[in-house]
Amino acid sequence: MELNPKISQAIQALRERTYFSAYPENPKAYSEESHDAGKTAFQKQLSNPFLGLDETGATGKFGEEVSPYMLVGLGVEYPVFTADYLVEQSQSAQNQWKKISPLERANILIEMLDKVSERFFELAYATMHTTGQSFVMSFQASGPHANDRALESVALGYEELTRYPQQLDWVKNMGKFDLTIKKNFKPVAKGVGLVIGCSTFPTWNTVPGVFANLIAGNSCIIKPHPKSVLPIAIVVEEMQKVLSAHGFSTKLVQLAADSSANPITKHLAEHSSVKLIDYTGGSDFGRYIESLPGKTVFTEKAGVNSVILDGAADAKAVFGNLAFAASLYSGQMCTAPQNIFVSKDGINTPEGNMSFDDVVASLRGALKGLAENPKMGAGTLGAVQNDITRKRVEDALSGTGAISNDAVVENTEFTDARTLAPSIVVVDAADDRWKHECFGPILFVVRTSGKEESLALAAHLASTVGAITCSCYSTDVAYMQSVEEVMNEQAFTPVSFNFTGAAFVNQHAAFSDFHVTGGNPSGNATFTDSLYINRRFVWVGNRFA
Amino acid sequence: MELNPKISQAIQALRERTYFSAYPENPKAYSEESHDAGKTAFQKQLSNPFLGLDETGATGKFGEEVSPYMLVGLGVEYPVFTADYLVEQSQSAQNQWKKISPLERANILIEMLDKVSERFFELAYATMHTTGQSFVMSFQASGPHANDRALESVALGYEELTRYPQQLDWVKNMGKFDLTIKKNFKPVAKGVGLVIGCSTFPTWNTVPGVFANLIAGNSCIIKPHPKSVLPIAIVVEEMQKVLSAHGFSTKLVQLAADSSANPITKHLAEHSSVKLIDYTGGSDFGRYIESLPGKTVFTEKAGVNSVILDGAADAKAVFGNLAFAASLYSGQMCTAPQNIFVSKDGINTPEGNMSFDDVVASLRGALKGLAENPKMGAGTLGAVQNDITRKRVEDALSGTGAISNDAVVENTEFTDARTLAPSIVVVDAADDRWKHECFGPILFVVRTSGKEESLALAAHLASTVGAITCSCYSTDVAYMQSVEEVMNEQAFTPVSFNFTGAAFVNQHAAFSDFHVTGGNPSGNATFTDSLYINRRFVWVGNRFA
Repeated sequence: MELNPKISQAIQALRERTYFSAYPENPKAYSEESHDAGKTAFQKQLSNPFLGLDETGATGKFGEEVSPYMLVGLGVEYPVFTADYLVEQSQSAQNQWKKISPLERANILIEMLDKVSERFFELAYATMHTTGQSFVMSFQASGPHANDRALESVALGYEELTRYPQQLDWVKNMGKFDLTIKKNFKPVAKGVGLVIGCSTFPTWNTVPGVFANLIAGNSCIIKPHPKSVLPIAIVVEEMQKVLSAHGFSTKLVQLAADSSANPITKHLAEHSSVKLIDYTGGSDFGRYIESLPGKTVFTEKAGVNSVILDGAADAKAVFGNLAFAASLYSGQMCTAPQNIFVSKDGINTPEGNMSFDDVVASLRGALKGLAENPKMGAGTLGAVQNDITRKRVEDALSGTGAISNDAVVENTEFTDARTLAPSIVVVDAADDRWKHECFGPILFVVRTSGKEESLALAAHLASTVGAITCSCYSTDVAYMQSVEEVMNEQAFTPVSFNFTGAAFVNQHAAFSDFHVTGGNPSGNATFTDSLYINRRFVWVGNRFA
Repeated sequence: MELNPKISQAIQALRERTYFSAYPENPKAYSEESHDAGKTAFQKQLSNPFLGLDETGATGKFGEEVSPYMLVGLGVEYPVFTADYLVEQSQSAQNQWKKISPLERANILIEMLDKVSERFFELAYATMHTTGQSFVMSFQASGPHANDRALESVALGYEELTRYPQQLDWVKNMGKFDLTIKKNFKPVAKGVGLVIGCSTFPTWNTVPGVFANLIAGNSCIIKPHPKSVLPIAIVVEEMQKVLSAHGFSTKLVQLAADSSANPITKHLAEHSSVKLIDYTGGSDFGRYIESLPGKTVFTEKAGVNSVILDGAADAKAVFGNLAFAASLYSGQMCTAPQNIFVSKDGINTPEGNMSFDDVVASLRGALKGLAENPKMGAGTLGAVQNDITRKRVEDALSGTGAISNDAVVENTEFTDARTLAPSIVVVDAADDRWKHECFGPILFVVRTSGKEESLALAAHLASTVGAITCSCYSTDVAYMQSVEEVMNEQAFTPVSFNFTGAAFVNQHAAFSDFHVTGGNPSGNATFTDSLYINRRFVWVGNRFA
């Protein structure tokens, strides 16, 4: 059997960290028919039970998703199962799956991704109407970008699992004779994996762990967020179909849909046979997951991302880029900036000093301009996933220093969409409000005593509360070196410098950018370094005289 | 700067898992003068303070080592420091060390190992008179084998740390233009590492973690067992000398000698600036270390190793091999067998069935024969490290089924040596005495209902209590496949099949055999897989527009 060439290409890209994508990210690269078919399939799904999954053993059906664009329930119901049933089935499916080689597993997994790619448009609409992402972001995040991240897991997994010879004759000269011992080296899977999804990126944050579990020979139970099930249900359907076609149990990959009223996450996570847990979500539950004894845990929790704004070679470009980064999906990306640290004395520009107040005014103008841009506004902002986020923003805006974004966002397609353009809260460094995650379209502009305090505050926050990214704008080379060193070494946080134009701090490219470092409280794992794979199996070497 | 060729050779061997050694293991490969000089140096050290270490900041001197061969104190005193002082110094030394490249670090670390190799004979005598190992084992374990394991950490570390390009232009075609982002990728060290040693293998179990910490850019504090300090003190002396010669702070590698009465291990382990802990020792303290929040922990705890004795193609060779494996260093190796599972119906041999009682008698004969062999006995058994081990054996021999080894071990060189040849306790499967570690020269022969129960008991014990190795003797190919599968997949335990002659289950070769798998309670880490390196640093990637 030949290795699927997508995997060899991905391995090469991963080593070199160069640009690579196996699935085009532009919706226009796909046929119009596939777009229409996807849209129709999504519409037909509404108000109907989801029928694509193996329902053997289900105890009922349930669904509670609400479209953030239409503010009506989707009416889609998914089969539900008991935690014990899911784990028992997962174990027995794993016993079959672990017996085949990494090569066979890798090729089957890529076949799954290829099948998923045929439903990218349906996935896009499903993602829009569960997460509130715009159409293009939904298409890219749940389609090609998620597939690429899954492929990344498979490729790195294949490389690590085949790192050593399967068997060899080990020969040691003992002086008068050679001692020969036959040895084999086996990557032994840990067992049943649980992957817990989030409401905002239901496939992008889920499939890396799923495919990492599977390439290593584990089975997988996917526990989606009850408000964001449809996208991953479509993925699981395609995966089960491919498993079935190859004679494997569809129970190898199961969807553990539950309800907000009767969650089964803890039952699954605490089950003694569940050995691996991947988690994306809030920090409190994340710390609970990390504290479970005897589990191998991979987390992405809350991060509070900083912008250190010291100077700008082109102020307009900087505020435009910042406004876009903060507005994209209404600030609901885990990589979105929250705090902008600016000296009370303002910033340097080629035109001279720009005062602190002018910085705030320029940022406000850029945010409002983007939100009200008829071509850009609605498509950039998307919709707010849930009312809790909206309420959080309202609360933040009721305090001092708040500058509400009064932009009128025009969404001609969905007039009921829950839309919120990012607002600003201007705070002093001593204020406490910016020192924790305030998830949603809110930016805190923090007035500092100077650039050194800006850096110190950003680094301390990242190391104590966590950060996934940091953005720095400056024209001072020595200062930028200092920002890089301090953020990297004290807070294990990457820095993006002077991003303007088409480069945005929010975007982490598969095969090149590590997503989350694992070195600060925003998470203990990375998409995708070798730990992300190697912690899922154990090397065992046997010897034969 | 060129990479030291030892490292490239080691990387190659690690990938291929073939035989490799950078430091000859046969004492006769070294000059007689170096042997004499080492012996003299050791003798001169007795009853004198150890002067080779940087003593700046020491609060006093202390030592409490006792020779298991002479049963007298060595009278060597080591500088002692407060935990806070050690950590503070470690941090500031790390700030300097982390700035140089993995290549520079790797070459300096190999220079240290080369310097250590010039003191192999002194190390051998120091190891004999602290651990009770025989001369040859002391030479090999603390000399070439320890150096090879340290080189293994450096080599794999170098490979992992240089896995990605340091910087590159990432270019993505955006249709009408290319988006180019400069990126760098940095392995950022976690900080201060603590390595906690054990009394029986004071350097072999310590240096892998020390050199893994250092290659990754961390600093290291070594907390030796207070009864087994001299060998690692010699190693630290040589490391500090090389650091000093290259202009680095000697505080990068510090020896944290303490006393049994006033241990500082917990102060060090719980210190907020200590980020990494390597530990070898008992399970209770190991679980405490593993439970410390916010630490990256590598443990080797107690394991109970099984022999599954089903049949023998050459019974005499099997009992000879087993007796040697059990007698080597009086059963004080973490890889030594403890439980021998034998069917009540006996075993298969080419001469027909050998009854259970005959198996016990043959084993007893082999153990006694080896112990009383004037050329082999004392040199194989060595001495018992401490009185607690002797007491444990006495307690085990006071119960039912005990068959004391009444061999008269002749040690002409050290007539006071604390010597104990392995004894046997015959127990039923239902007995509890074999179900936990009984460290020292004791073998339990467990009477089972048949070979299937033998395997089930061995696998259950390994998965619940932990095991580092398993040995199986059988001529039944299907059964051996089943043993391999069950021990590997249920207990993550490697199996050595039908070892006779010069192959012993106790020996794990550097660059080829994984020591401890990390998949069962005997430990959470391996010498040396990629996790052993990659968990010590964090990849951080920065981007520049």
